Amino acid sequence: MASLGVTPRSEDYARWYTDVVQKADLADYSPVRGCMIIKPYGYELWEAIKRELDRRFKATGHQNAYFPLFIPMSFMEKEAEHVEGFAPHLAVVTHGGGQKLDEPLVVRPTSETLIGHAFSKWIQSYRDLPLLINQWANVVRWEMRTRLFLRTTEFLWQEGHTAHATYEDAQEETMRMLDVYTDFAVNEAAIPVMPGRKSEKEKFAGALASYSIEAMMGDVKALQAGTSHNLGQNFAKTFEIKFLDENNELKYCWTTSWGVSTRMIGAIVMAHGDDKGLRLPPRLAPYQAVIVPIHRTAEERATVLDAAERIRAMLDDGGVRVILDRRDDVTPGYKFNDWEMRGVPLRIEIGPRDVQNGTVVLARRDLPAGQNKTSASQEGLVGRVIELMDEIQANMLRQATEFRDAHLHEVNSYDELKEVVRDGWALAWFCGRPECEDQIKADTGGATSRNFPLDQEGGEAKCVACGRPAKEKAYFAKAY
Amino acid sequence: MASLGVTPRSEDYARWYTDVVQKADLADYSPVRGCMIIKPYGYELWEAIKRELDRRFKATGHQNAYFPLFIPMSFMEKEAEHVEGFAPHLAVVTHGGGQKLDEPLVVRPTSETLIGHAFSKWIQSYRDLPLLINQWANVVRWEMRTRLFLRTTEFLWQEGHTAHATYEDAQEETMRMLDVYTDFAVNEAAIPVMPGRKSEKEKFAGALASYSIEAMMGDVKALQAGTSHNLGQNFAKTFEIKFLDENNELKYCWTTSWGVSTRMIGAIVMAHGDDKGLRLPPRLAPYQAVIVPIHRTAEERATVLDAAERIRAMLDDGGVRVILDRRDDVTPGYKFNDWEMRGVPLRIEIGPRDVQNGTVVLARRDLPAGQNKTSASQEGLVGRVIELMDEIQANMLRQATEFRDAHLHEVNSYDELKEVVRDGWALAWFCGRPECEDQIKADTGGATSRNFPLDQEGGEAKCVACGRPAKEKAYFAKAY
Repeated sequence: MASLGVTPRSEDYARWYTDVVQKADLADYSPVRGCMIIKPYGYELWEAIKRELDRRFKATGHQNAYFPLFIPMSFMEKEAEHVEGFAPHLAVVTHGGGQKLDEPLVVRPTSETLIGHAFSKWIQSYRDLPLLINQWANVVRWEMRTRLFLRTTEFLWQEGHTAHATYEDAQEETMRMLDVYTDFAVNEAAIPVMPGRKSEKEKFAGALASYSIEAMMGDVKALQAGTSHNLGQNFAKTFEIKFLDENNELKYCWTTSWGVSTRMIGAIVMAHGDDKGLRLPPRLAPYQAVIVPIHRTAEERATVLDAAERIRAMLDDGGVRVILDRRDDVTPGYKFNDWEMRGVPLRIEIGPRDVQNGTVVLARRDLPAGQNKTSASQEGLVGRVIELMDEIQANMLRQATEFRDAHLHEVNSYDELKEVVRDGWALAWFCGRPECEDQIKADTGGATSRNFPLDQEGGEAKCVACGRPAKEKAYFAKAY
Repeated sequence: MASLGVTPRSEDYARWYTDVVQKADLADYSPVRGCMIIKPYGYELWEAIKRELDRRFKATGHQNAYFPLFIPMSFMEKEAEHVEGFAPHLAVVTHGGGQKLDEPLVVRPTSETLIGHAFSKWIQSYRDLPLLINQWANVVRWEMRTRLFLRTTEFLWQEGHTAHATYEDAQEETMRMLDVYTDFAVNEAAIPVMPGRKSEKEKFAGALASYSIEAMMGDVKALQAGTSHNLGQNFAKTFEIKFLDENNELKYCWTTSWGVSTRMIGAIVMAHGDDKGLRLPPRLAPYQAVIVPIHRTAEERATVLDAAERIRAMLDDGGVRVILDRRDDVTPGYKFNDWEMRGVPLRIEIGPRDVQNGTVVLARRDLPAGQNKTSASQEGLVGRVIELMDEIQANMLRQATEFRDAHLHEVNSYDELKEVVRDGWALAWFCGRPECEDQIKADTGGATSRNFPLDQEGGEAKCVACGRPAKEKAYFAKAY
């Protein structure tokens, strides 16, 4: 049986991350360069993420569709900035059915081009607008250095694509979906993300403006966990996405795109994990509670398993995602470690004495050992467990928020910025120029602007790095 | 506004099919050779199919996972029959990240090889068995002649992959999943499929035995709508999938695989569609009922829409998937045709007189014009509509079964077989030899064995074609 321990975070954070992903059975490397296998437990987590995002997409009027995996190279090349951004990351099919193809096909890195082409056929008049489409799909971006969930050649994601009659409508949609992502991250994943606008240098290849939610990981580095782009009329002009307005005038549409990927799983691991492994927010956890029976004799075993099964059925009926660990070939102690590694929010222990007393022991994953156990009556347990799910969810968000706030610092000088980004995020006046951002990156050993947060006080000051006029503050941090 | 008519089935069935798929907004051709775009209405139907299959997979103990899109060419080549079967249909990535790859990558046509490799790492002992995995994914099989949903270079599907300790366990799983497919087809899609074993010639490349469900389309041709394979130890030996049994002996596993694809949508179109368009079984229909308001004056419009919205909300609360067609730019007659084209099982008409009388008119899609309309009270409408959903579902299955049975003929001579397969399926004693099957195909202008149905009387007779001994009867038909 494999050891359940992981490298401590303080010793080697990168190693800790990979250990947890593998030992919690979320994913594994594959024999295919840069591609991972998402194992059942990891995929269940992805299904929960999909369920909660899809619900929000549909509630905001979007419909799912599916577009081809392959994109003719000529389509990619139509939008100059777009192809420039993606060219180094393309996987190219040159042969099909035993023949060399006349035109190579790109395995989609994203689908603006193909969907733009489809939109140009689907949209005729203002009555067809807004057109609100989402696609759940796999995409491929060739990567030299890969890390499970964070950076892989193939990954799963959703890509929203919408078309609108005016700039204002497109901008409203862009912000609406950024809000949807923020709401999902905060309320489902318990990650207090920072929404904001990306700098010129960091924006999407071909966008007018890009927005992101940025999450602070356990090593204080930033992770971009979702993006929403106002594409202006760039793709509409390239792909002739036009409509007849109310006055019968032919106009170009305004389009948006937005995406969240399996990277979100990496964000959850690093926002909440500890040296015992994963910690999953109850709203997304494949199992919200695990029941571990404790017994020595065969007689005890029968009585305890009987009671445990009754409790399992009761919780299951009550809508709690619960599993009873019936394994006989491992000890209760092993099971404790195993389910802690997998991040199950609540452990329910039941032994012979508990059966007699009509009680169980509840052990919360979100609290430190020594403070996390309480006894509870079997009567009314469903209600207590449901209550606890909300408490744990809220506490995990609180813990992550406190950690984030302890590492956020507003800075007033370049020296201060350089100091802060060693172990934190710096909020500073920033001119937004790519050259200035390059300089900051060089001077700090890799910190980049994360985004201009949405809530700005306004006013004007000098850029923290170059001294030129700056109208907004931006977060700077080292990032994944 | 595009015309809503389709080519009559009697005139050109193939054209009728494509017309319906496009005009019902299920899918469309894309600028990518052989690849289709699944439009929102078609994708909603696929989501319903996924939902019902996934529920059955989970209820039978399967877990979802995700494996890489790319397969190293050397993996494909390990199983001789397998690569031989798939080689003519492979799409090959030769370049990634701007470099020529050392080893070409195949875009998965199916994942036995890669999943077999993973299983060899995941399985150690009998305790790890059975291993029951499913994957929802896109696959690519290069096709020269493509047809929407029926044969496309890229399609969506699920592929189940399982490993077992014994032949018997693998065979039981193979049949269990064939049952799941049959149950889904009959009870959700209202298609009375014929489950059976494929002939040597028609079986999956690398399988010990393949089973299929075969569906009769409106032009009497057969469509293979799902397959389940007992892979024996072929892939286990190729990929070293071994386990230690209870006696600590190292043994090869027995594996299975099974799949259903977006082809199922084509089956639904052709099993139920008529000259007015699609007819969807209520259990899978994205919308089970559509409300069409009828009014002339502005005053009528206000009253009728008010009542219609009340009915919509009532049905929605009752769990009916319902839509109110509020469009003002098309007539009620146009709406009738439009929703008939889209196959919505029930139309609810409401006009000023209905508002006064507290009634609506119900028009069923499964009955012919003239016999399909009844008046119903608004009171108790939810219950009536839910009842009707069951009636329509049952009636569609009955209609399809009657049509199937009218075109199934047991034959006793080769002449009879040749006659029957012109416009029907022939059930005949068959030796099962590939050479004999080739002969039948040549003599009948394309009929192939569909499968050996599961329920055989037994006994032995002479093969209908070659006169050699035969132990089973098989269905012969022309097929998609």
